[in-house]
Amino acid sequence: MAIYQETITFSTEGDTDILDITGQVADVVKKSGVTKGLATVFAVGSTAGITTIEHEPGVIRDLQAAAERWAPVRGQYSHNLRGENNGRSHILSSLIGTSFSVPINAGELILGTWQQIVFVDFDTRPRSRRVMVQVMGEKV
Amino acid sequence: MAIYQETITFSTEGDTDILDITGQVADVVKKSGVTKGLATVFAVGSTAGITTIEHEPGVIRDLQAAAERWAPVRGQYSHNLRGENNGRSHILSSLIGTSFSVPINAGELILGTWQQIVFVDFDTRPRSRRVMVQVMGEKV
Amino acid sequence: MAIYQETITFSTEGDTDILDITGQVADVVKKSGVTKGLATVFAVGSTAGITTIEHEPGVIRDLQAAAERWAPVRGQYSHNLRGENNGRSHILSSLIGTSFSVPINAGELILGTWQQIVFVDFDTRPRSRRVMVQVMGEKV
Repeated sequence: MAIYQETITFSTEGDTDILDITGQVADVVKKSGVTKGLATVFAVGSTAGITTIEHEPGVIRDLQAAAERWAPVRGQYSHNLRGENNGRSHILSSLIGTSFSVPINAGELILGTWQQIVFVDFDTRPRSRRVMVQVMGEKV
Repeated sequence: MAIYQETITFSTEGDTDILDITGQVADVVKKSGVTKGLATVFAVGSTAGITTIEHEPGVIRDLQAAAERWAPVRGQYSHNLRGENNGRSHILSSLIGTSFSVPINAGELILGTWQQIVFVDFDTRPRSRRVMVQVMGEKV
Repeated sequence: MAIYQETITFSTEGDTDILDITGQVADVVKKSGVTKGLATVFAVGSTAGITTIEHEPGVIRDLQAAAERWAPVRGQYSHNLRGENNGRSHILSSLIGTSFSVPINAGELILGTWQQIVFVDFDTRPRSRRVMVQVMGEKV
């Protein structure tokens, strides 16, 4: 059994920017040498989320519209009374979740054809982001 | 440490069909021989979700009704402009999540008495579905 | 590779009580001796959730208000026709999820500075709660 960890970094636009990070996660799996096991993708921070989606422009717009329904931009947020403007970003992060795990078989993430791993930046401004990818398993 | 993987398959009705798959997951754990570790249940695809619920008819109806509030059937979905009709199914999958992990102790999933693992098919038609169950841990 | 499991217990107030359990999870990681690996935090039961949040009073109030939007207290719940009053608690548990996993590096949970692990009790009354913390990994 081996454990390999790598932090990937990238820039985001904020405002429910939805980035396909599947390729970067798959690269870390390849580097790890693990052929059978578990990849955990973890968003460091409290205003982002990790989930899976069919990463095509229509679904992306639909998820952005749904996020507005789940936590409206013009809603009232106690967090914003402290001088912040990202109250809704925190709520959406807690809702979608910051951790995602996917099995690895024959060195590949076992995702569906139209199922991509996405980092969703719910914050209100462009940011530099860090995601920890951990691979645990066997090198068969 | 051992890793065991098995894909379970079943048929669903679609339209937020909620299937209790706890028994099938427990069977894979038993076959694996792992007595202490982690079971990861992964829905392959982008229109389904995995979560836990008390699997009784009332709660099932309540979750179906809540899904309608979170992403209405008659809502506007950009995905559907491509000739698809399952825009909401994608959104609900991203919301609920496609991966679920539960510890194993003494060869048993450590779920509560009224806590079942469910596969929720948010798609709009009956389908044949695949779920990967991975068991990682010790055979004490 | 080692696996260490410990059940932590605490009392909650119910009604979307949001408890920061990061310190208790970190204590279990320390006891395990694991320096590199994965901590899984699992809520045993069907009316609670585990997620991450910036645990400050404003965001806590905002998540409580959001939960009311996602599953209103005065909504209609089929579960409640059985003499129960916690139909919404079940729905919110399935929505937020009962399992959360975070990588460990150099013996520390790799959380962000304003990112705490929280147990959310959606039930309608004070309860005694159990959370299983499992640590899997290497003692480097």
